[in-house]
Amino acid sequence: MKKTLSILGSTGSIGTQALDVIRHFKDRFDLIALTAGKNIALFKKQLIEFEPKFAYIQSKEHIDDIQQFIHKENLNTTLCPNNDGLSIIAKIPQDLVVIALSGTIGIKATYDAIQAGNDIGLACKEVLVSAGSHIMEASKQKGVKIHPVDSEHAALQQCLTNNSNSSINKMIITASGGPFWKLEKEKFNSITLEDALQHPNWSMGKKITVDSSTFVNKGLEVIEAHHLFNIDFDDIDVVVHRQSIIHGLVEFIDGNILAHLSSTDMRFPIQYVLTYPEKLHSTWPRLSLTQIKKLEFFEPDYDRFPLLKVAYDVGRKGGSYPVVFNAANEAAVTLFLAEKITYLDIQRIIMKSLEEFNHDLSLSIS
Amino acid sequence: MKKTLSILGSTGSIGTQALDVIRHFKDRFDLIALTAGKNIALFKKQLIEFEPKFAYIQSKEHIDDIQQFIHKENLNTTLCPNNDGLSIIAKIPQDLVVIALSGTIGIKATYDAIQAGNDIGLACKEVLVSAGSHIMEASKQKGVKIHPVDSEHAALQQCLTNNSNSSINKMIITASGGPFWKLEKEKFNSITLEDALQHPNWSMGKKITVDSSTFVNKGLEVIEAHHLFNIDFDDIDVVVHRQSIIHGLVEFIDGNILAHLSSTDMRFPIQYVLTYPEKLHSTWPRLSLTQIKKLEFFEPDYDRFPLLKVAYDVGRKGGSYPVVFNAANEAAVTLFLAEKITYLDIQRIIMKSLEEFNHDLSLSIS
Repeated sequence: MKKTLSILGSTGSIGTQALDVIRHFKDRFDLIALTAGKNIALFKKQLIEFEPKFAYIQSKEHIDDIQQFIHKENLNTTLCPNNDGLSIIAKIPQDLVVIALSGTIGIKATYDAIQAGNDIGLACKEVLVSAGSHIMEASKQKGVKIHPVDSEHAALQQCLTNNSNSSINKMIITASGGPFWKLEKEKFNSITLEDALQHPNWSMGKKITVDSSTFVNKGLEVIEAHHLFNIDFDDIDVVVHRQSIIHGLVEFIDGNILAHLSSTDMRFPIQYVLTYPEKLHSTWPRLSLTQIKKLEFFEPDYDRFPLLKVAYDVGRKGGSYPVVFNAANEAAVTLFLAEKITYLDIQRIIMKSLEEFNHDLSLSIS
Repeated sequence: MKKTLSILGSTGSIGTQALDVIRHFKDRFDLIALTAGKNIALFKKQLIEFEPKFAYIQSKEHIDDIQQFIHKENLNTTLCPNNDGLSIIAKIPQDLVVIALSGTIGIKATYDAIQAGNDIGLACKEVLVSAGSHIMEASKQKGVKIHPVDSEHAALQQCLTNNSNSSINKMIITASGGPFWKLEKEKFNSITLEDALQHPNWSMGKKITVDSSTFVNKGLEVIEAHHLFNIDFDDIDVVVHRQSIIHGLVEFIDGNILAHLSSTDMRFPIQYVLTYPEKLHSTWPRLSLTQIKKLEFFEPDYDRFPLLKVAYDVGRKGGSYPVVFNAANEAAVTLFLAEKITYLDIQRIIMKSLEEFNHDLSLSIS
């Protein structure tokens, strides 16, 4: 039987790679819906190739264009026309909703999909960082599985397999170290946008590439792991692993450690989630340890990369602190990408936002 | 409820470490029996400390001594007096029989324990190498679990967890490379016994240390893995990994890889097997990747270490070929340990035995 699924955010980095996996196992999937932000050209191509039952485009000015395109191409696709399209699609009963949206709109869509009893493929950091407790509680109540679609958490999940959470002693998330791992501290004030977009191992979106260089991305992943695996911050370690071959490790209480390895290709974790619990033969380039030759590990450097420590701190404080941390980072990185602020300003803006935020807010999703 | 178990071969390297694990979790185990070969002094200490219900000593000349010792110390231990002691103990209904014997006597004891429906902790290479098909078939018929008690196979088993065998693409066993990994080929003819006993990572018995230096040990492990996991020889790789931190890896058909890591302390796999399926908090020194810093991987060198290739060959041929390979190696290493032959003679003797063995024998255990 085919697995029914939707990709919310199909034109982004994770969205396109998820479609690549679906393309390779076409007879296994029944694509319910695709949604996009504003990459109209790519979205049109996807609509023609995959002809999903439903589609949705976030940017209002392109709705008519897409509607006419569907009509002209005679596609058997219904365009969800109003603002509520993501919600409508998330609520359609299906096997899996992949949340590859960026930003806080992912939270509502995830919540809607959970309420409808749909399993989640989660590739949107904001969801667990900003609303982790709510989302995990809702998924528990509805008996819904949250499958993380990133290399680190998918790695941890694969290491767990049938071991119960009570047998976990520690989880270790690896970090590549990013482009500035070897850069002296006094040179950080001259980092350019171009420098920050040079990730040593992964080809990703711009925002996450910058977040990776500041270790904010790793910090957000620590907060995500805390929620996903119900594990204390004290029991989550970050280890800098330059080659990004080992993505995550679980140390059990008996001292035995399981690790997940793959080459740096997001289609490995994406396929794992899309075909779960089944395993299908993939054709993505495989890892060869003897070609890689060497795996290296270092302690994180909280002096040059203080935001990782800040992420632990806001994670431990909980409440709205991670929301503020994430929002301040999002704002700062947007400014940095627009070349309005310097690299070190990202750090300053986040620190300042957190200093000014001395009260807590309660969050509700409806 | 306490787990009932026996340690067959309690004075050897694995036996003593198994007792160390039991010592740490005393309230979890009910020790049915201990057996030893000829290390009388240590065996006496063990009898006093653990006071098993049954005991057995292989060397006939020490039976009276041990019997008197039990009497004198007023131990509540029955000594199995005749040649059949191992068999009697293996057949006592219990949760686990640890076969830490060396040599072919392990085969009969394993078979007996299986026939009695007892699960096996297997730390005797001969059993699967010489009688793998028979043993695995018998264990299947009796619904008995065979838990390998060595770092590599216990690693592979932990990587499998709840994944079915059909989802395995490849298994990788790591090899330290031994003391001669960097030695030029022309210097192999001057290797001394002392050189061969210097294992870089593991502290083990003398025979297995020599086997490790010739890669015969790794070859035997490949044959064991073939039987244990019902996997083709073509799908078992050996990778030289100098640090012996990753012990085994499983590559699944979807390209995702799980690996098992621990520091080089046999108590990790031993505890895993003894407490299976439960996990208990251990106190053995834990692995720290950031202290290890670097993991390296190389292809095996079949030119300087041809016996690994020979092991694959005899494994593929099956029948009595692995028996001959193993027996010839055992004889040759015994001579080498007695300094009667040179290091390269080990290789020559094995090759010659296999050349002369051009017929096949059928094996039966009764």
